[in-house]
Amino acid sequence: MRPLAEVFPLLGWLKHYQRQTFISDLVAGIIVAILLIPQGMAYAILAGLPPQYGLYASILPLFIYSLLGSSRSLAVGPVAIASLMVSTSISQLAPQSEADYINAAINLSLLVGVILLVLRCIRLGAIVNFISHSVLTGFTSAAAIIIALSQVKHLLGLDLARAERIDESLMAIASNLPNTNSITAVISVIAFIILWYCKRTLCDQLLRLKLPQGVVEPICKAGPMFALLIGSIAVWYFSFDQTAAVKTVGMIPQGLPHLHALHIDVDLWRQLMMPALLIALIGFLESVSVGTALASKRQERINPNKELVALGMANIGSALSGTYPVAGGFGRSMVNYSAGAQTTIASMISAILVAITVAFFTPLFYYLPKAVLGAIIIMAVIPLINIAAFKTCWRFNKADALTLAATFFLVLFTGVEIGILSGIAISVALLIYRSSQPHIAIVGRVGDSEHFRNITRHDVTTGKSTLALRVDESLYFANTRFVEEFILQQCADNKQIKHIILICTAVNFIDASALETLENLIINLRDEGVTLHLAEVKGPVMDQLNSTHFLTQLAPGNIYFTTDQAMREVAGV
Amino acid sequence: MRPLAEVFPLLGWLKHYQRQTFISDLVAGIIVAILLIPQGMAYAILAGLPPQYGLYASILPLFIYSLLGSSRSLAVGPVAIASLMVSTSISQLAPQSEADYINAAINLSLLVGVILLVLRCIRLGAIVNFISHSVLTGFTSAAAIIIALSQVKHLLGLDLARAERIDESLMAIASNLPNTNSITAVISVIAFIILWYCKRTLCDQLLRLKLPQGVVEPICKAGPMFALLIGSIAVWYFSFDQTAAVKTVGMIPQGLPHLHALHIDVDLWRQLMMPALLIALIGFLESVSVGTALASKRQERINPNKELVALGMANIGSALSGTYPVAGGFGRSMVNYSAGAQTTIASMISAILVAITVAFFTPLFYYLPKAVLGAIIIMAVIPLINIAAFKTCWRFNKADALTLAATFFLVLFTGVEIGILSGIAISVALLIYRSSQPHIAIVGRVGDSEHFRNITRHDVTTGKSTLALRVDESLYFANTRFVEEFILQQCADNKQIKHIILICTAVNFIDASALETLENLIINLRDEGVTLHLAEVKGPVMDQLNSTHFLTQLAPGNIYFTTDQAMREVAGV
Repeated sequence: MRPLAEVFPLLGWLKHYQRQTFISDLVAGIIVAILLIPQGMAYAILAGLPPQYGLYASILPLFIYSLLGSSRSLAVGPVAIASLMVSTSISQLAPQSEADYINAAINLSLLVGVILLVLRCIRLGAIVNFISHSVLTGFTSAAAIIIALSQVKHLLGLDLARAERIDESLMAIASNLPNTNSITAVISVIAFIILWYCKRTLCDQLLRLKLPQGVVEPICKAGPMFALLIGSIAVWYFSFDQTAAVKTVGMIPQGLPHLHALHIDVDLWRQLMMPALLIALIGFLESVSVGTALASKRQERINPNKELVALGMANIGSALSGTYPVAGGFGRSMVNYSAGAQTTIASMISAILVAITVAFFTPLFYYLPKAVLGAIIIMAVIPLINIAAFKTCWRFNKADALTLAATFFLVLFTGVEIGILSGIAISVALLIYRSSQPHIAIVGRVGDSEHFRNITRHDVTTGKSTLALRVDESLYFANTRFVEEFILQQCADNKQIKHIILICTAVNFIDASALETLENLIINLRDEGVTLHLAEVKGPVMDQLNSTHFLTQLAPGNIYFTTDQAMREVAGV
Repeated sequence: MRPLAEVFPLLGWLKHYQRQTFISDLVAGIIVAILLIPQGMAYAILAGLPPQYGLYASILPLFIYSLLGSSRSLAVGPVAIASLMVSTSISQLAPQSEADYINAAINLSLLVGVILLVLRCIRLGAIVNFISHSVLTGFTSAAAIIIALSQVKHLLGLDLARAERIDESLMAIASNLPNTNSITAVISVIAFIILWYCKRTLCDQLLRLKLPQGVVEPICKAGPMFALLIGSIAVWYFSFDQTAAVKTVGMIPQGLPHLHALHIDVDLWRQLMMPALLIALIGFLESVSVGTALASKRQERINPNKELVALGMANIGSALSGTYPVAGGFGRSMVNYSAGAQTTIASMISAILVAITVAFFTPLFYYLPKAVLGAIIIMAVIPLINIAAFKTCWRFNKADALTLAATFFLVLFTGVEIGILSGIAISVALLIYRSSQPHIAIVGRVGDSEHFRNITRHDVTTGKSTLALRVDESLYFANTRFVEEFILQQCADNKQIKHIILICTAVNFIDASALETLENLIINLRDEGVTLHLAEVKGPVMDQLNSTHFLTQLAPGNIYFTTDQAMREVAGV
C-alpha cells in the first residue's frame, strides 16, 4: 500500500476517509462544478475554441489530477491565462480551418503534458525559478487586461478581428463602437450586476437570514450560473437571437468527448514548442503557488515533483479528450478550499457533474448569450490586475519594479509570448548587472573584538600597510573585472599598501573567469610589491581552489581561516 | 593642457617624448606595417571584400585610435574574428551586388562605432561582462577553425560557395578536392614553409649571428611580407595566373580611400543591429584584454571608458573610409609591444606607411596569389585554437567547461551569431541554475570561540531547539523557493526545533520575490510554533529591510548583529 500511496496521494487520504469527509467533498465538488461549467465554456471561447471544449477539459484532466495530485484543494481545469496563451500561439500559426485550430490545441496539450513530465524526469522543475515574482505579476496583470479587452466585443455584440496587442484592441473597439448591439449591451450590464451582487452582497444577506452555511455557500458561488440562466431565458423568451441578432452559444453536440484524430507533425511541434513551454511553466508555477498557499493553511505541504507529474498527466488527459491545456486555477481553487474540499474526491465529483452536463444538458446552452460568458470572464480576471504590486516593489527594490513594469508593458504592446520572454531576459540581465558591480567593503576591527566591519559604517581600527576587503558577492565572470579594477585602483591610490586581505565570507563560488583574473591579479600586485591573501574561504570554494595550482601561485600570500588571524599576522592589529 | 590630455592620452605621453622614444616608435611602427599590409588584405578577403578595403581600414582608424586610445601598445585595424563576423552577418542579408555588400559593411562600421559610443554614454561598458571567459574561449577557438577552413579553397585554388557551418565547409572541400589546382597548392605549401620558418627558426638564427635586435626584429616579423613577395614574383615570372589559372589579387585601384556614398536605411540597420552589437562587444572585449595585459607589463593601466570612445571613433573612421569594422588585434598588438612601441605614435607611423602603400604601390600586388593570403590568415588564427583550455576548465569548474564546449560546438555547427548568443545564454542559465540550489550549511559553534562552522565539516556544538543556518547566496527569485523548502523540511524532520537563525553573511541582497517568500515563511513557521531570526545582516540589506514592514512581521523574531549573540540569546550555547 505504501508505494502505491506514494504515486497516488489520494490513496493515503482515503485511509482516513469518513462519511463527514465525503459530505464536505461532495458540497465542494458541486460548488466548483457550478462555477466550472460557465467558466469552462467562457475560457474555451477565449482560447478560440467552441465552448464545449472547455467542458471537455473539465472531465478527464480532473480525474487524472484527483488520482495523482498532492494538493487536496487545487482545482484543475481550463484557466484564463493559459486560454489566452493558447489563442495567441495558435493564431500565429494562421490555421486554415477550425479542424486545424483544434488539432493545434490538442497538440499543445500533449506537448505541455510531455514537457512537464520531461521536466520531472530530468529533475528540472527548478526551471520555474527563472520566472521571478515581478515577471509573473507584470505578466498576469497585463494578460488580465488583454483578456478583459478581448471580451468587450462579446459584451457589445461587435464583430471584431482578434487583436493581440492592446493598442490594436482599443483601436478596433473604438472605431466599431457605433455598431454596438444595444440589446447585447443591456444583457451584459445585467450579467455584471448579477455577478457583482452575488459576489459582494448576496452572501452577507443570506448569512444574516441565518441560513446554514451549506446552503449559503453554493448560492453565493452560483453567480455565473444565475447570470447564465437569466441570460438564456431572456434570449429564449424574447427571441433576441432572431429579433436583435444577439449572439448565443448555439448548438453544442451532446455526448462525452472522444479523440477524433490527432495529427502530429514535426513542423507543428517545432512551432508550438516555445508556447507550450511557456504554458507549461506558467501553469505549473500558478498551480504550485496556489497549492502551496492552500496547503500551508492546513499545516501541510505539497510536493512539487508530484505536481509536475499530476499536471503533466492531466494535460495528456486533455489531449486524449481532444481539447486544450489545463492548469490549476487560482479562483476555483480558493472556492474549492473555502467550500470545504478535504481531498481530491471533490474534484472527481466536479468532473462527474460536468460529464453529466456534457452528456445530457448541452441543449440548455443553446440560447446562452456570449455576452454573459464575456462578463463571467471579465469578473474572473479583474482580481489578477495588480497595479499596487508595482508600488510595493518600487519601495523595496527598483530593479524588481522595473522588471515588473517592463514585463507589463511589453506584454501589452508586443504580445504575450515576446512579453514574458523579454521579462525573463530583463530580470536575469538586471540580476547579472547588479552583481557585476558588487558591494565591496573595506573593513577594520570593531574595538578589540574578532569582528570586522565596513570602515564607513562603523568605528573600527585598520592596519597602515594592509587593506582588508570584503567582496559581497561570489566571484564569477560578470563581476571579476570590477573586483580586479577596484583592488588595482586602491593600490594606485595608496602606495603604502603592501598586503591585501580578500575576505571571502560572501564568496560562494569562483568560476574559471574569476580564477584566471585572480591569478593575473596576484602577478600584477606582486609586480607592484603587494601580496594578496585570502581569509574565511568557504569549504566548497577551498575544495575548488585545491584542485588547481592556485595556492602555489598565491605564495607568499596565505589563506587564513579567520579574518582575525589574518589581520593579526599580516597587519599586526 | 590637463583637460585636453584627459581626452587625448597621447598629449600626456608627448610631454616626455624624446628622440629615443621616437626611434622606438618608428621601428615598431614599421614592423607592424610590414605585418599589417598583407594581413589587412587577407582579412578583407576573409570579410568578403576586395583586398584594398583591409588597407583602407588600416589608415584613418589607426590615426583616430592613436589620438584617443589609452593603451600605448594596442594595434588597431582589421582583425580575423571581426572579419569572419562581418562576412557571416552580411551574407545573411543576401546582398544583390558588390556595392550592396560594401554598403552593408560601411553601415556595420558606423553601427559598431555608434554602439560603442552609446555604451560609453549610458555607462554600460560593463555589458561585456556578460561574455564569460569560457564563452569567449569557446567562441574564439571555433571561429578560428571556421576561418582556417574558409581559406582552404584559396590554398587549393578551389571554387567553393561560402559555407558558414563546419559540416558544410568540410563537405564542400571534400567533394571538390579532385579539382585542386596543383600549382596553387604548391605555392601554398611554400608560403607555409616561409611563414613557419620566419616564426620559429629565423629569429634564433639571426640572433646567433649577433645581429643587433633592431635589425633582427623586423626581419623575423616580415614572414608574411616575404611570402607575399616570393609568391608574387613566382606568379609574375612563370605567368601562373595565365598558364595555371592561379588566382591573384589582381587590379587594386591606386589612391587613398574616400567615402563614395553611404545608404542608410532603417531596415538595414535593424538587420545589422545584432551582428553589430556582437562585433562591438567582442572587439571591445578583445581590445581591452590585450590592452590590459600589455599595460600591466609596464605597471600601467588602461581606461576601459576611454577605450570605448577610442574604438567607437576608430570604427566611425572606418565608416568614413568606406570600409569595415576594426578592433584591437591580439597578434599585432603583441608584435607592436615587443617591437618596442612606446606610444601610439607607432600606430600613426604604421598608418602612414599603409597610406603610402595604398597611394602608390598597389600595382605591386597584381600578381599576389590569394593562396599566400590564405596561408597568412591560417598562421595568424592557429594560436587562437585553444583546446587545452577545456581541460583546465573541466578540472576547476564543470559548468564553465560545459559552457566552453557548448559554445565551441554551437559556433561550429549552427553559425557564429547563434553560437555566441547561445553560449552567453547557457553561461547565464547555468549561473542561475547553480544559484537556484544554493549551498546551505547548518552551523554550530567552534569550541567556545565566536566562530560558527558547518556541522558536517567541523567539530561544533549546537543548541537542541535551535537551528542555525547559513545560506551561501543572496536571496532572490531563482533560489528563494529552494531555501523555503529546505527550512520547512528541516522543521518537518525535527519537531524539536523552536527557533531558526538565518545567518546572512552571504546574503548580499534580497529581491521582491525573496521578501515575499520570507514573509510567507515567517507566517508558516509561526503556525508550526517556530520563530525565525536573522543574524549578521549586512548594511545594504538592512537598509532595504528597514524600508518595509518586515521587522514588524518578524517579531517576536529578532535581527542579531552577530551569530554569537543570536546563539547565546536564542539557543543558550
